[in-house]
Amino acid sequence: MTTTNQQAPVSSAPTISRQWQLIRRPSGWPVADDFRLAEIELPPLADGEVRVRNEFVSVDPYMRGRMNDVKSYTPPYVLGETMTGGAVGRVVESRSDSLAVGDLVRHFLGWRDLAQADAAAFAPTAEVPGVSSSAFLGALGMTSLTAWVGLLVIANMKPGDTVFVSGAAGAVGSAVGQLARLRGAKRVIGSAGSDEKVALLTGKYGFDAAFNYKNGHLARQLADAAPDGIDVYFDNVGGEHLEAALYSFNDGGRAALCGAISVYNETAAPSGPRNLPMITTKGLRLEGFTIGNYQQHATAFAAEVGPLLASGQMVSDETVIDGIDNALEAFFGLLRGENTGKMVVHTGA
Amino acid sequence: MTTTNQQAPVSSAPTISRQWQLIRRPSGWPVADDFRLAEIELPPLADGEVRVRNEFVSVDPYMRGRMNDVKSYTPPYVLGETMTGGAVGRVVESRSDSLAVGDLVRHFLGWRDLAQADAAAFAPTAEVPGVSSSAFLGALGMTSLTAWVGLLVIANMKPGDTVFVSGAAGAVGSAVGQLARLRGAKRVIGSAGSDEKVALLTGKYGFDAAFNYKNGHLARQLADAAPDGIDVYFDNVGGEHLEAALYSFNDGGRAALCGAISVYNETAAPSGPRNLPMITTKGLRLEGFTIGNYQQHATAFAAEVGPLLASGQMVSDETVIDGIDNALEAFFGLLRGENTGKMVVHTGA
Repeated sequence: MTTTNQQAPVSSAPTISRQWQLIRRPSGWPVADDFRLAEIELPPLADGEVRVRNEFVSVDPYMRGRMNDVKSYTPPYVLGETMTGGAVGRVVESRSDSLAVGDLVRHFLGWRDLAQADAAAFAPTAEVPGVSSSAFLGALGMTSLTAWVGLLVIANMKPGDTVFVSGAAGAVGSAVGQLARLRGAKRVIGSAGSDEKVALLTGKYGFDAAFNYKNGHLARQLADAAPDGIDVYFDNVGGEHLEAALYSFNDGGRAALCGAISVYNETAAPSGPRNLPMITTKGLRLEGFTIGNYQQHATAFAAEVGPLLASGQMVSDETVIDGIDNALEAFFGLLRGENTGKMVVHTGA
Repeated sequence: MTTTNQQAPVSSAPTISRQWQLIRRPSGWPVADDFRLAEIELPPLADGEVRVRNEFVSVDPYMRGRMNDVKSYTPPYVLGETMTGGAVGRVVESRSDSLAVGDLVRHFLGWRDLAQADAAAFAPTAEVPGVSSSAFLGALGMTSLTAWVGLLVIANMKPGDTVFVSGAAGAVGSAVGQLARLRGAKRVIGSAGSDEKVALLTGKYGFDAAFNYKNGHLARQLADAAPDGIDVYFDNVGGEHLEAALYSFNDGGRAALCGAISVYNETAAPSGPRNLPMITTKGLRLEGFTIGNYQQHATAFAAEVGPLLASGQMVSDETVIDGIDNALEAFFGLLRGENTGKMVVHTGA
């Protein structure tokens, strides 16, 4: 469905919003025919509303879950409606006293280039000189908060712990590894799916050891990288990675279960680790979390991570795909592991 | 190997100890040929030693793990040596100032009728009038302490929680269910492997609902028994029971993983639950424990549970097998689920 505007806009602000909609629930790996790119003519602003030109739109692994029609911590996407997600943009028209044209805002109306809603849907955000606004979707945003909460609140990492991170070259994983090192970990180990990413882990991100899980027996590679065992596991992957971590855990180990990208597109239910009884014999704790329930830590997180990023003690990568038309391909690339660091779509100036 | 004593004993105390020894590591289900019953002539007591006639010897599921040659929280049994385990007995001869003939003692030199060692190996135990000494192996012992720690310390059960217990007619499970009810659970649900046990759960033990997991689809039976979901799961079984619990968990649910008797005798590594990603999406916590690390709670446990048992608010069952010669068969029966409540072997007066 395409709606085009044949009339002159009533203001100088753009009125045609290009938006990605889910039109069929994917079975297994999503395909292009499961989606459509709609052009929506935005109505004139109602009182209290603002119009925002998105600068960057976030694509994240958890969105795959929202494409299924199952109860989860975020509601499923509605067929035929525009998908939502994290975004950062700038106000281009306002009928609200709380936001002015030019203000930078964070919000959750992603998957579109123009967003329009009540001003309450948009959070004004102070610009950081020299930092791209895309950082508010990653290194200064929910992504790094997820790393901070999982490592420190959920897994209760302590100085001297050996920490293993799966999917370590991703946006969350690279922040976890750097935070662990800065917090006094004895050893930080990461896994990734390509030799280039592995080089990035031990180079740019300062991991003590890293391996390409596609290059050999996963549990053995981890055991070799962690000869004294691991104390903390930050799981972005699920599946065999969790099984390997259970084998390598020292007594009293803690796992923060953040995601399971390895199984998101499985149509048959994948089997779980075969060594779960080790949870009992080693006295392990596995705890899952979704960041929506931990927003109360945002202030402490920002106080710690903001200065670390500003001083260069923590670094981050972004994979930027240009144009809202390419957002779907960006999401597919994310599922295939083609990103390094945070994957974002650049949608405007 | 059998050693018989042709000489008159040097004291009136018996000197021939009948002891069960592991002579071959079982592959899968243990068989009689993996063990031998040895008759050992005990040497005269050394200074500081005592000789104890066991009254009851404990057989427990965790012993199956000790028959394997793998690192675990308790060391493997040594081939050709007598197996150890919980026991309660009475001193029959003493060369120690700290223990006198007739004293009741708890100790860990199980799987034999006569035990002899330094007095430090035996803990003097106050008799409880009208209570069989076997209770110190179960309702007043490590078994109920395991229930108390798992429910309250590990799973952090709160009044108003719905609690699910697997293997609920066992020694640990029946204590968990009763404690949960007495601690203000909204609803207590148990699973067991026979209709007789299910009747015991909703009858004698006061569970609100119970089902025979062999009689239908496990996850569906649990969902029917817990229409509003569960908040706490006490896992004695592992395998499919954990999978069913994950499906039924409410957000923020907690599992105490105590044992996995369903998989102890598997030779191929069993696959784990297929729905582990629910740990993340529901924000669940799974924590394993072995009671050896939680002995610091023994005093608080005894203060709560002792009066509950004395007043009859908590009840317990025992399955008693008579004679040290039958200890192996008792253990096999335990693995087959033939016990109701604590399984003990009666080895003396």
